[in-house]
Amino acid sequence: MTTFGESHGPAIGCVVDGCPPRIALTESDIQPYLDRRRPGQSRFTSQRKEPDAVKILSGVFLDETSGRQVTTGSPIALLIDNVDPRSKDYADIKDKYRPGHADYTYDVKYGVRDYRGGGRQSARETAMRVAAGAIARKIVPGMQVRGALVQIGAERIDRARWDWAEIERNAFFCPDAQAASRFGDYLESVRKRGSSVGAVIEIVAEGVQAGLGEPIYGKLDSDLAAALLSIYAV
Amino acid sequence: MTTFGESHGPAIGCVVDGCPPRIALTESDIQPYLDRRRPGQSRFTSQRKEPDAVKILSGVFLDETSGRQVTTGSPIALLIDNVDPRSKDYADIKDKYRPGHADYTYDVKYGVRDYRGGGRQSARETAMRVAAGAIARKIVPGMQVRGALVQIGAERIDRARWDWAEIERNAFFCPDAQAASRFGDYLESVRKRGSSVGAVIEIVAEGVQAGLGEPIYGKLDSDLAAALLSIYAV
Amino acid sequence: MTTFGESHGPAIGCVVDGCPPRIALTESDIQPYLDRRRPGQSRFTSQRKEPDAVKILSGVFLDETSGRQVTTGSPIALLIDNVDPRSKDYADIKDKYRPGHADYTYDVKYGVRDYRGGGRQSARETAMRVAAGAIARKIVPGMQVRGALVQIGAERIDRARWDWAEIERNAFFCPDAQAASRFGDYLESVRKRGSSVGAVIEIVAEGVQAGLGEPIYGKLDSDLAAALLSIYAV
Amino acid sequence: MTTFGESHGPAIGCVVDGCPPRIALTESDIQPYLDRRRPGQSRFTSQRKEPDAVKILSGVFLDETSGRQVTTGSPIALLIDNVDPRSKDYADIKDKYRPGHADYTYDVKYGVRDYRGGGRQSARETAMRVAAGAIARKIVPGMQVRGALVQIGAERIDRARWDWAEIERNAFFCPDAQAASRFGDYLESVRKRGSSVGAVIEIVAEGVQAGLGEPIYGKLDSDLAAALLSIYAV
Repeated sequence: MTTFGESHGPAIGCVVDGCPPRIALTESDIQPYLDRRRPGQSRFTSQRKEPDAVKILSGVFLDETSGRQVTTGSPIALLIDNVDPRSKDYADIKDKYRPGHADYTYDVKYGVRDYRGGGRQSARETAMRVAAGAIARKIVPGMQVRGALVQIGAERIDRARWDWAEIERNAFFCPDAQAASRFGDYLESVRKRGSSVGAVIEIVAEGVQAGLGEPIYGKLDSDLAAALLSIYAV
Repeated sequence: MTTFGESHGPAIGCVVDGCPPRIALTESDIQPYLDRRRPGQSRFTSQRKEPDAVKILSGVFLDETSGRQVTTGSPIALLIDNVDPRSKDYADIKDKYRPGHADYTYDVKYGVRDYRGGGRQSARETAMRVAAGAIARKIVPGMQVRGALVQIGAERIDRARWDWAEIERNAFFCPDAQAASRFGDYLESVRKRGSSVGAVIEIVAEGVQAGLGEPIYGKLDSDLAAALLSIYAV
Repeated sequence: MTTFGESHGPAIGCVVDGCPPRIALTESDIQPYLDRRRPGQSRFTSQRKEPDAVKILSGVFLDETSGRQVTTGSPIALLIDNVDPRSKDYADIKDKYRPGHADYTYDVKYGVRDYRGGGRQSARETAMRVAAGAIARKIVPGMQVRGALVQIGAERIDRARWDWAEIERNAFFCPDAQAASRFGDYLESVRKRGSSVGAVIEIVAEGVQAGLGEPIYGKLDSDLAAALLSIYAV
Repeated sequence: MTTFGESHGPAIGCVVDGCPPRIALTESDIQPYLDRRRPGQSRFTSQRKEPDAVKILSGVFLDETSGRQVTTGSPIALLIDNVDPRSKDYADIKDKYRPGHADYTYDVKYGVRDYRGGGRQSARETAMRVAAGAIARKIVPGMQVRGALVQIGAERIDRARWDWAEIERNAFFCPDAQAASRFGDYLESVRKRGSSVGAVIEIVAEGVQAGLGEPIYGKLDSDLAAALLSIYAV
């Protein structure tokens, strides 16, 4: 996957190379994951309003015989237009390095910095991971990958109450319904103090066949670690 | 450069990685090269009518102080919408492998084939090379790369009449004006016989500093050969 | 770095590409790090006796004018002969998958398995990381990278007693001398129970300039995570 | 394949990654190709005397049940010791840039140059291509790749006399016996004039399955062109 785009440019997107041919794929396979990720759905996330409607620009073909749209083995380009750039006023952050952003690093490394909403170092980049991940889910049959929030600050879930269905029902993607309601109050109190807290997410992959990945420098552990640590907030 | 897009999909595009920051770049640096490449300008090329208007989707930033738009060091995505797909009727080629296209190979390799105008194996892909090349021209100062057609079938130019200015004045990008007019009649006669001929293009790079490229498997000769042989008609 | 070699083959080695030219380099820059890593030096490590003498096979040149041996920019190959393969008797493990080794995975993935001492999945591979790391230390001036063991099982060091000099004086590379002696007894007791424990290592890099690494998928955090998770015991 | 080594260092070698497991492989599969390539066998090649005995250092395993040595899927390292470095006297070329070598380029690029027999830019590097190629031949069953010299200077073979068996019988690997004897006299006369000539080699691959290679930038034509142009004399 090659991604591109800034938080406040015209669009973000990615190119997925190496997807096998003849896999059924339409925008409706991808959009539900973007909808779930979409900001502005609870008071605990970014308030940016953005439909994040994904378009497939290449790599698929509508087979007239079967009426199915399938991948062709060619690069799959995905595009999401930015519709709420909220570019109004950056006067207050234009000359400030924000802790928790890579502002200083970008300035030192590139000598130029896109200060509009984080530019390239915006968490908006992760939308393309979600989109590409939706394609990846279609490639390995029988494998299921799910994640859940299990701790926020010092507050943990009760694992005895783990229910995967619950993660779709609360704003924290938390498998323990009671913990989720507690988390809301807790996070509110942290916010009122003008602070923030980290969280622990647990990802479970089931139905993984033996032998995935390559030895040593390319092993699955290594690839997963690189992927996780490439996400901004991790 | 990562390219994507099919001849008859919604768009073609590319992502250019590794462009240095703080280089002035707008669409007007790229568009003239696409205009020159554009099909439908003479009776000797593809008759497809296509404005090939390029949009820069990312990797640039308008510096308010200087009023200049510059690269930021982030991936530069370029997009060209397909506006004349001419998708009318593929009934006659749908079930045929055309010699000179990779139809058979794609079918064997992928088990699915986008028969609309060549799909991924369309020469339309080269538009993105031209666009990315326009960016590359801005990166290495003092280097000039130019090309000219010097032979078509058995007909050659007279090198004593070589004039670089001439390549902008005839349909063959030929530096010898007399040869160019001869080439037109010659090609017409070949066409009337229902045949086609190859051509020889000469590319001259001037102002190349010593030491570009890497030794042995990454040497400049090797990279250039790979690039040239990756073009469909070569 | 490209590594090769099995625990019980004739040799292990690596090729380091991309080392800048004109850096002073002889075997004596590398050997001390291998000596420190060498097994068989305390009762707490592998008992394999192995001098691990490194040879530089390429990429250096003795400058007759200065009398200095320097890198040339060409690939640096390093080789360590295996002198204590201890191949005596594998009858007892030949048909067993050992937990804690990748025996089962290799068998499923490759359909063949080198059961002699772990084969390719032996921790012996890390010797080449140490050797290549010794070269890396010479490339970035002013940067110092050091590591120390800070916890073993549930036993932790007292950070108030941290002394970097101490890590060369005990078998645990532990910066707290008192903790180190406690660790010895503790580990002995664990061993007597026929068990084992994990440990926590802390790595400190000082003098790191801003802007190292590439954004997002190539960022330093991501590269370091991939490297650490590619080590067998991590 | 990753290669290393200089003409006058202790050894040259390579690491072959990605070879499938369970392919029978011993040094005797590789040595015949190196023997055929070996310099000093006729008066028309380099006079360096070198046995070029290859050792396999890793990536193979002797299966005790079958008694066969097979690849394991791990990196295969090959090593050839340099036994005739002929390092006697470089005083005369030490301060000269030889045309036909990359002496000047290396000096500009790296600021240091191994003047002993060409250093890294010696044609000796091609020995590792021959060795790795011998492994490649075992991987694609049913494919046969052969080459022959068909022209030297302005002198060409008569294709009516093409006999593949002939290429093993003359010093020019020429499939036309009569041409080969003519080539000898011709080359001798060129040499006496203190000059040299180029040659044309024809490579024929048979039994190639459809669909090898990747589209566009990774296509087989592109890969082959890159490989050929990475050889020094090409």
